Amino acid sequence: MAFTPLLQDLLAALRCLPGVGPKSSQRMAFHLLERDREGAQRIIRALGAALERIGLCTRCRMFAETELCGICGDARRDAGLVCVVETPADVIAIEESGVYRGRYFVLLGRLSPLDGIGPDQLGVPVLESQLGDGITRELILATSATVEGEATSGYLASLAREHGLRVTRIAHGVPMGGELEYVDAGTLSHAITARTPVMTER
Amino acid sequence: MAFTPLLQDLLAALRCLPGVGPKSSQRMAFHLLERDREGAQRIIRALGAALERIGLCTRCRMFAETELCGICGDARRDAGLVCVVETPADVIAIEESGVYRGRYFVLLGRLSPLDGIGPDQLGVPVLESQLGDGITRELILATSATVEGEATSGYLASLAREHGLRVTRIAHGVPMGGELEYVDAGTLSHAITARTPVMTER
Repeated sequence: MAFTPLLQDLLAALRCLPGVGPKSSQRMAFHLLERDREGAQRIIRALGAALERIGLCTRCRMFAETELCGICGDARRDAGLVCVVETPADVIAIEESGVYRGRYFVLLGRLSPLDGIGPDQLGVPVLESQLGDGITRELILATSATVEGEATSGYLASLAREHGLRVTRIAHGVPMGGELEYVDAGTLSHAITARTPVMTER
Repeated sequence: MAFTPLLQDLLAALRCLPGVGPKSSQRMAFHLLERDREGAQRIIRALGAALERIGLCTRCRMFAETELCGICGDARRDAGLVCVVETPADVIAIEESGVYRGRYFVLLGRLSPLDGIGPDQLGVPVLESQLGDGITRELILATSATVEGEATSGYLASLAREHGLRVTRIAHGVPMGGELEYVDAGTLSHAITARTPVMTER
């Protein structure tokens, strides 16, 4: 085989990256070794610093370098709204929409008893202490529209109601600009069942 | 913005990888930080070791951890055949075909005067010393079928002929199992021009 032992180690290590298989790990390794050794050094440094210094916000479990993340530490955000999402990537997606000015809570997963993922693994005790802090008014459920995501939402909704909070779920339906023809049956069926009244102008 | 400074550094560093843009760098970074910190450590270690200890074979310019690569150091390979390729990935591809038992020479590029890539950058002096060593019998040209690849081949062919060596070029044409309908016009036109006589059985 034409791969040296260290090259084999490198290919195997690069396959830890999501979406990277044998072909692309080879492409990445060869590119770095042939043409971008400086870039490889940069990856080593950035990854090392990230592993060492990026942890979770103690309040919302988003990635943070300090005790509180930038959102939880921002006094201009509405601390009364808490939007529950499954992953840090969900926070980024909602932030990019630009419409939300409340806080988040990142579960880092969803309820899945068979995999040993219960409320404790999702940080629910931390969330619950915030639900009863007298500041939170509304819990917005933005978990995924999967069986486990819905179960997680249902569980959190009942918790929030025990604390007398308003509970909402993000809207599901046909994407804006989406053509009905290309929307899957499950989404369409939900969109019809969950139709909303139209206000007519007088 | 919800990205911390170190996270921004990491995303920028991951974009040094070929084929990795903003979306996939985020996916990779979040995956490693959320779910595979051990994998991230493994990438750091493997990349560091590779940068430090993988260099080029002094004879053929393939990646090697020692002075000679595994192929050049293998006495069972036919030292009289030298196959010239552009990249280490080409060596891997030919090795995987399993049919070739000679040596290689890796140009790590192709002639491109406008980009300042001449014979010296491609290691041609090293190759030329081997063409005149009395061991090499045949130079097999396996550079790419592009304008620059063809120019590189033409240049190396004249060098090899000066040393009285046999010079061959790998065959180009319709891929095995390829349907004519889906083959591009350039390949088809070459396949027809370069048609070979068929031996009829008697």
